[in-house]
Amino acid sequence: MPEDYALNRHASHVAHEIDRVRNGHWEREPDFLAVEEPLAIHVSYVADGERVNAPLSVTMRTPGHDFELAAGFLFAEGLVRTRDDIEGITASGEPGGDGQSTVVVHLRDGLEVDIEGLKRNFTATSACGVCGKASLDALVHEGCRPLKSTAAIQGAVLVSLPPAMLTGQSGFETTGGVHACGLFSTEGRLLSLKEDVGRHNALDKLVGQHFLAGTMERLENCVLVLSGRASYELLQKALRARIPIVAAVGAPSSLAVEIARTFDITLAGFLKPSGFNVYAAGGRIRE
Amino acid sequence: MPEDYALNRHASHVAHEIDRVRNGHWEREPDFLAVEEPLAIHVSYVADGERVNAPLSVTMRTPGHDFELAAGFLFAEGLVRTRDDIEGITASGEPGGDGQSTVVVHLRDGLEVDIEGLKRNFTATSACGVCGKASLDALVHEGCRPLKSTAAIQGAVLVSLPPAMLTGQSGFETTGGVHACGLFSTEGRLLSLKEDVGRHNALDKLVGQHFLAGTMERLENCVLVLSGRASYELLQKALRARIPIVAAVGAPSSLAVEIARTFDITLAGFLKPSGFNVYAAGGRIRE
Repeated sequence: MPEDYALNRHASHVAHEIDRVRNGHWEREPDFLAVEEPLAIHVSYVADGERVNAPLSVTMRTPGHDFELAAGFLFAEGLVRTRDDIEGITASGEPGGDGQSTVVVHLRDGLEVDIEGLKRNFTATSACGVCGKASLDALVHEGCRPLKSTAAIQGAVLVSLPPAMLTGQSGFETTGGVHACGLFSTEGRLLSLKEDVGRHNALDKLVGQHFLAGTMERLENCVLVLSGRASYELLQKALRARIPIVAAVGAPSSLAVEIARTFDITLAGFLKPSGFNVYAAGGRIRE
Repeated sequence: MPEDYALNRHASHVAHEIDRVRNGHWEREPDFLAVEEPLAIHVSYVADGERVNAPLSVTMRTPGHDFELAAGFLFAEGLVRTRDDIEGITASGEPGGDGQSTVVVHLRDGLEVDIEGLKRNFTATSACGVCGKASLDALVHEGCRPLKSTAAIQGAVLVSLPPAMLTGQSGFETTGGVHACGLFSTEGRLLSLKEDVGRHNALDKLVGQHFLAGTMERLENCVLVLSGRASYELLQKALRARIPIVAAVGAPSSLAVEIARTFDITLAGFLKPSGFNVYAAGGRIRE
C-alpha cells in the first residue's frame, strides 16, 4: 500500500464568478462551489489463476480521499472484511476526457469474490451518478438543446417562493425529514408540490404528474424551487423537462452549475428572503 | 389509464414513540417519521410480438404518487417521450413480505426499447436502495448482529458535538454545499471528519480511513455524527462498521429507525445545542 493513498488528487472546491443579490442589489463576486465528479471503482481479483479487472460502481463524489472511499464502499458492501483482503489501491491514471477518475482496489489472491453477483448489484444507476462530463456530452447527443424560454421572474417574486412552498409541505411539517420541490408560475403561483425522502424522487413525481396529465409544455414557462441543494441529477431532470428557471434553497454543486451554463438554464442558489446567488443565465431574473 | 393513478397506496409518515430531550430533561412523546420504503419500477413492453415484463430499477422513496414517480423517472431517462408512449400503469399487488411495492409501466406496442442497455444502466445499486425490509433480513443473514457495545455518552457531551464538528468542516465553510460526518470519542474528542457532496460517500471515506489504517476496532466505542438526515443507507453502513451511537443533525427516516431498533444502535436526531430526540437504544445516553 503506497503511503500517499490519502492524497487529494483533485480539488474539492472550485472558484466561480457569481452574481450575489442582496435586497435587490446585484454584485458580481468570486465564489466557491463544491466539486461533484464521477469516480469509477474497479476491483482487481484473481479468477482461475489469472488476475482480472472489473468495473464495480460509479459514484458522484467530491474528489479527495478516493482510496478511503473505495475501501469504505467495499467494506460496507461486505466484499472485504479485514485489512489484509486489500493488497493495494491504485488510481488508474489521470481523469480522462470524460472527467471520470478511476480507482482500482486490488484484492488478495484467494479472496472469494462473486463478481457476477456484485456487478448485478452494483451497476450504478443513472439516478445515482453514472454521469459527469460524459453525460453532458450524452445529453447533447440525445438531443438536449439549450433552453430558449423567454420566461422571466422578478427577484422580489423569487425570494417569496420558499415561504410559499413551505405552507404546502405537509410532510416536512409533520416529520422534518423530507425534501420538497415546487413548480411555480413566474408570477409566484404554486402549481404543484411534491415531497419525498429522496430529492430525485420528489422531482420525478412532479414531472411525472405533468407528463401523465399531458401538460408538459407548461413547464417551459415555470420556475422550479428545490428545498435543498442542487446536484447534477436534479439539473439533468430539469433540463429534460425543459424547465428554464431553477432556484435552490441550498448550494449548487460544480456539475449542476456546468449543466445550467451549458444548456442556458437560469440557476439560483441560497434562496433566502434577503436574496440569492445567481450561477447561470441570470437574464431571466429581473431586478 | 385508470383514474386513481395518483392515489397514495401507503402512508407517507408513520407514528413512533421517541424520547424528547430538552435541556437535560427526558420526556417520552409521540412523534412522526417520514416513511422510506423501496419501490420497484418495472416496464412491460412488446418484443417479437410478445409482451414481456422487465424489472428496471428500485428506488428508496416515500410512498405516494408512485405512478407519477415511475412516469417521471422513465421520462427523465429518455425511455418515454410523449404521453402516448405509456398505455397504462399498474401496481402489481400489495407490497410483499419484503415490504417492497412494485409498479409496472405498460409501454405502447411499437415503442423501441433497448431493454438490455437499460437494465445495464439501471440495475439499482445497494448504495441507492435495493434494500428495505428484504435487506434487513439480508443484514441478519450476512451475519450482522445487534451491537453489544457498552459505550456511553453524556447528553451534555452529545449536544456539543455538532459545533465541534463544524470547526473542521472546511468544505462546508468554503462552499456551503457538502455533507459531513464526524467520528468522536464518547468524551467528545473529534477523531476523524470527512466531507462530500454525497453523504454516503462521506461515511464511506470515514470508515475506509479506519479500515485501511487497521483501526476498525476503535469504532466500536465511538459516536458518529451526521450533518444532515439519517437514512437507511447510512445506518446500514454504521451497522457494518459496528458504530454503537449515531447522532444526526437532521431527521431519521422510518427505515433508519427500524435498523437502529433491530440492531440495538443508539440513534439520536435533530441534534441541537438545546437537546435532541432519541429514536432507539437510548440507554447509551446518560442524563
